[in-house]
Amino acid sequence: MTTDPGSRRRAPAGAAVLREDVTDAIRSAVFAELAAVGFARMSIEGIARRAGVGKTAVYRRWKSKLHLVLDLVSAVAAQGMPAPATGSLYGDVRAVLELAAYALRHPLASQVIPDLLVEAARNPEISDAIKAALLDPQQGVAAVVVRDAVARGELPPGSDPDRALDLIVGPLYWRLAVVRGELPPEYLDDLAASAVAALTHGADPAG
Amino acid sequence: MTTDPGSRRRAPAGAAVLREDVTDAIRSAVFAELAAVGFARMSIEGIARRAGVGKTAVYRRWKSKLHLVLDLVSAVAAQGMPAPATGSLYGDVRAVLELAAYALRHPLASQVIPDLLVEAARNPEISDAIKAALLDPQQGVAAVVVRDAVARGELPPGSDPDRALDLIVGPLYWRLAVVRGELPPEYLDDLAASAVAALTHGADPAG
Repeated sequence: MTTDPGSRRRAPAGAAVLREDVTDAIRSAVFAELAAVGFARMSIEGIARRAGVGKTAVYRRWKSKLHLVLDLVSAVAAQGMPAPATGSLYGDVRAVLELAAYALRHPLASQVIPDLLVEAARNPEISDAIKAALLDPQQGVAAVVVRDAVARGELPPGSDPDRALDLIVGPLYWRLAVVRGELPPEYLDDLAASAVAALTHGADPAG
Repeated sequence: MTTDPGSRRRAPAGAAVLREDVTDAIRSAVFAELAAVGFARMSIEGIARRAGVGKTAVYRRWKSKLHLVLDLVSAVAAQGMPAPATGSLYGDVRAVLELAAYALRHPLASQVIPDLLVEAARNPEISDAIKAALLDPQQGVAAVVVRDAVARGELPPGSDPDRALDLIVGPLYWRLAVVRGELPPEYLDDLAASAVAALTHGADPAG
């Protein structure tokens, strides 16, 4: 492997210097290609063309399109996902929904996430990366929301965070990613109140 | 176009007779290929190989893999989806969840549906077919469930069937098709009760 010919600095001995701007251009091109044609049809050639670089520039950085996508997904995971901590179960649920709605309505994410979930069903490497990047952080947030609600007496001890996540995020995912329906004004408020009702039904948190 | 050389009967004048068993074998092969490799990677050649027929036998019936899939999806739509009519909102919701859980846990459907939903985002023809085959029937069932619940005084007049579908099916779809998590015993009972609590929260149906 040689240093990138376009690099402006001399490479330190033994290390290949890769131009950050080229890496960034390739990363953006991957998102755009994923959204436009999907993982299965995406090619290194198409990515390179969109990024305005040669195929070698891509292969110098990643072995395959699978490694490229896994790397991107892991970068998203590294950004983390803060727990809301608004002081009430309704407030926390509303904040989680706001963030999820933003992500699911983002034109790239709304194409890329369902596509990668489909690939995940066939490819354990993608499945593990998606789990680490998207599902684990969301389950972590749900765990904190439930823990805080239990501490405030809004949910009974032993409430299941996975069930909470199903009830909070499921209806929104269904509407935005499956039906691809509208999000009327105040619908997130209604979904948050509905999720709180679902979470607390039959429970006697004070008991 | 000629009659299928394998046909045992003489073709009536002007009509091409296509062997039903070959057609059925191709249809099964399409489901299996969709599940195994997905729509984007699926080829007429792979379908023919899996069905044990020549490519001509496929092309004699369908112009392209898109037409094949649209035809299959429409066949599912034609089967209809009965409204449950159990006599209570909880019973109806529980029945809808039972059917949805069966469909989403079916190994073929659980691969094929999310895949086609992803394709639908890029292809209006697939989008229309999916809408007619999967979403419209479900919305129809939700409309009947809500109408009956309103008639019994379990939901207030003017309740929105699309919101009802989000709250009933969303959490289950999230768990089975996105997280690909387990379905613990009695989880459907809990989801049904949670959905009823979400549907009726803040409402005073008697008012």
